[in-house]
Amino acid sequence: MDDRIRAHAETLVDWSARVGPGDDVVVRVAEGAHDLAVAVAAALGDRGANLLATYGSDEVSRAYLRAHDGDFAPADAERALYESADVVLSLGGGRNTAATADVPGGTRGAYDRARSDAREARMATDWVSTVHPTRSLAQAADMSYEAYRDFVYDAVLRDWEALAAEMARLKDVLDAGSEVRLVAEGTDLSLDIGGRTAVNSAASVEYDSHNLPSGEVFTAPAGVEGEIEFDVPITVRGRRLRDARLVFEDGTVVDYAAAEGEAALGELLDTDEGARRAGELGVGMNRGITRPTDTVLFDEKMAGTVHLALGRAYDACLPDGAAGNDSAIHVDLISRMDDGSRLVVDGETIQRDGLFRWEEGFEGA
Amino acid sequence: MDDRIRAHAETLVDWSARVGPGDDVVVRVAEGAHDLAVAVAAALGDRGANLLATYGSDEVSRAYLRAHDGDFAPADAERALYESADVVLSLGGGRNTAATADVPGGTRGAYDRARSDAREARMATDWVSTVHPTRSLAQAADMSYEAYRDFVYDAVLRDWEALAAEMARLKDVLDAGSEVRLVAEGTDLSLDIGGRTAVNSAASVEYDSHNLPSGEVFTAPAGVEGEIEFDVPITVRGRRLRDARLVFEDGTVVDYAAAEGEAALGELLDTDEGARRAGELGVGMNRGITRPTDTVLFDEKMAGTVHLALGRAYDACLPDGAAGNDSAIHVDLISRMDDGSRLVVDGETIQRDGLFRWEEGFEGA
Repeated sequence: MDDRIRAHAETLVDWSARVGPGDDVVVRVAEGAHDLAVAVAAALGDRGANLLATYGSDEVSRAYLRAHDGDFAPADAERALYESADVVLSLGGGRNTAATADVPGGTRGAYDRARSDAREARMATDWVSTVHPTRSLAQAADMSYEAYRDFVYDAVLRDWEALAAEMARLKDVLDAGSEVRLVAEGTDLSLDIGGRTAVNSAASVEYDSHNLPSGEVFTAPAGVEGEIEFDVPITVRGRRLRDARLVFEDGTVVDYAAAEGEAALGELLDTDEGARRAGELGVGMNRGITRPTDTVLFDEKMAGTVHLALGRAYDACLPDGAAGNDSAIHVDLISRMDDGSRLVVDGETIQRDGLFRWEEGFEGA
Repeated sequence: MDDRIRAHAETLVDWSARVGPGDDVVVRVAEGAHDLAVAVAAALGDRGANLLATYGSDEVSRAYLRAHDGDFAPADAERALYESADVVLSLGGGRNTAATADVPGGTRGAYDRARSDAREARMATDWVSTVHPTRSLAQAADMSYEAYRDFVYDAVLRDWEALAAEMARLKDVLDAGSEVRLVAEGTDLSLDIGGRTAVNSAASVEYDSHNLPSGEVFTAPAGVEGEIEFDVPITVRGRRLRDARLVFEDGTVVDYAAAEGEAALGELLDTDEGARRAGELGVGMNRGITRPTDTVLFDEKMAGTVHLALGRAYDACLPDGAAGNDSAIHVDLISRMDDGSRLVVDGETIQRDGLFRWEEGFEGA
């Protein structure tokens, strides 16, 4: 076994999920994630945790959903499982990213609604999602298998403690600030973040962070004004979005365009009222992620990028009891912050040309 | 997909487990059973049942058990899952029958003990175990993959209703009888079955039968006298037993021998007091099983054989409230009933030369 698989498993179990003796751990294993599951099992055994593995097979799901009439009963057994679990580790990594492409959207939606109690029970555990590199994901990223594995492990096997400390600096600035301004080619956007709390997403439940890899600081803007261009292409619900542009007035999208996927972008914005407002501003800080791979788990954490999510805001960013932007969607759109760009908080430049003010080479305000 | 996989899945879901709309079904998927899992998922979706798939990977288990110190916590999440489930379908079929050969026996034993509540919760559901044919199982059976698939589907895809009706005839004879006598080369054994109830094991929970394939009628003898030779070789706990012989006096084994594995047989008999007594007499009636494959799930159902299990008796065979033979083991040993053999109940020959009295060619008492 590649030593990096073992290191991935130990990072997941120890840094991300903080598993301890006697913890009931559910491990969801995608079709292509067997090797990571073996390494995770060894780590869980060594830590004295309990293990129950579930089979997260896209082909099994597809067969089930296509055969079902769509009138789903509540998933009581699944809910009971998660209610008894302390930790849920999801090991992604399938064998075909299009495996469920022919499941009718209505069936999938009805299924998701019937399982909402089970999903909430899972989200109440110390859950963490990660990805085992498979040939299918390498193909989706336009990369060879070997190069893709290097890419994934560079993203996952970070010095998370050091990155958490660096990200804390940005969190402190955002928590104290009331206005963020983003300036780049095609972008001049102001975001009201007064009273909001940033999340230091350091790939650990200790940081309210549930992705491995992570490496972003995000908050929920209260208001947005101006325009922004997203020059990192991304596939949303099977449709490619390239060079999307949004214009905000009074917090709401009033104009949009895209070099590719403009109609799909329009449909997204029409989902509901909240879909035209921004639920999240995120700043990617993971330097192990050096290129987009059309997978949001990685792309949005790429150092030297920011992302804006249309739709739902996360509660962790809001004052106690406050309601954030609500929507059925949460779609992250990503912009590079390279030469000529600035991220400014309350008039002070925090990042210029992709370098933070605490980095060597940063050229002052 | 081979049509037989679909037929196997439908037999399992409809005939064996009697799955209905809204049933919570847990499907345990072995490493090599993916294709059967896909077909089972389609059948469950079509019947409107809920599906949760678990991953029964030997390699995951091995990694977990070898890393664990052996002091296992109760498996609460697993127990909660089975307590909420209506049906548990176990799809066997691994990629290496020796995958857990280097797990220390003590660790395995401690793990099984810690999971006894979870196991009992599973046994309280409408559970059914079956096997998807894999190359590994073909290898263990000394067969090509294609020949092994033919073998498995011949055993599984029976006219179960017709077989259940035929087996009911033998059950009626055994339920009414008080003494069974087995006569064959090397065998002359009398078994007291007065007051015991035979199980018509027709591969369906409707018949108290939890294996697919099944196809046997079994009961629990109260007393045993005489000798028996087991000419179907079988591997018990990794050790080969060939031409084992047992001599019973007063219900207890007083002498034993074997052409191969005699020491292992001695160890089995020494497990506990109940290990020296017979817990089950079974009569194989599945004509789709035409050769032994060193897998008890199939071998003990082979038409033209009988088997005697050392150890634990099943409650279903006993009068209400009565205690049957108790033991930590239940090991089935198998004899052919071919030319020259007789199965006699209360003096009446029920089977001669491998043919039942209701079959063409049977030559009367």
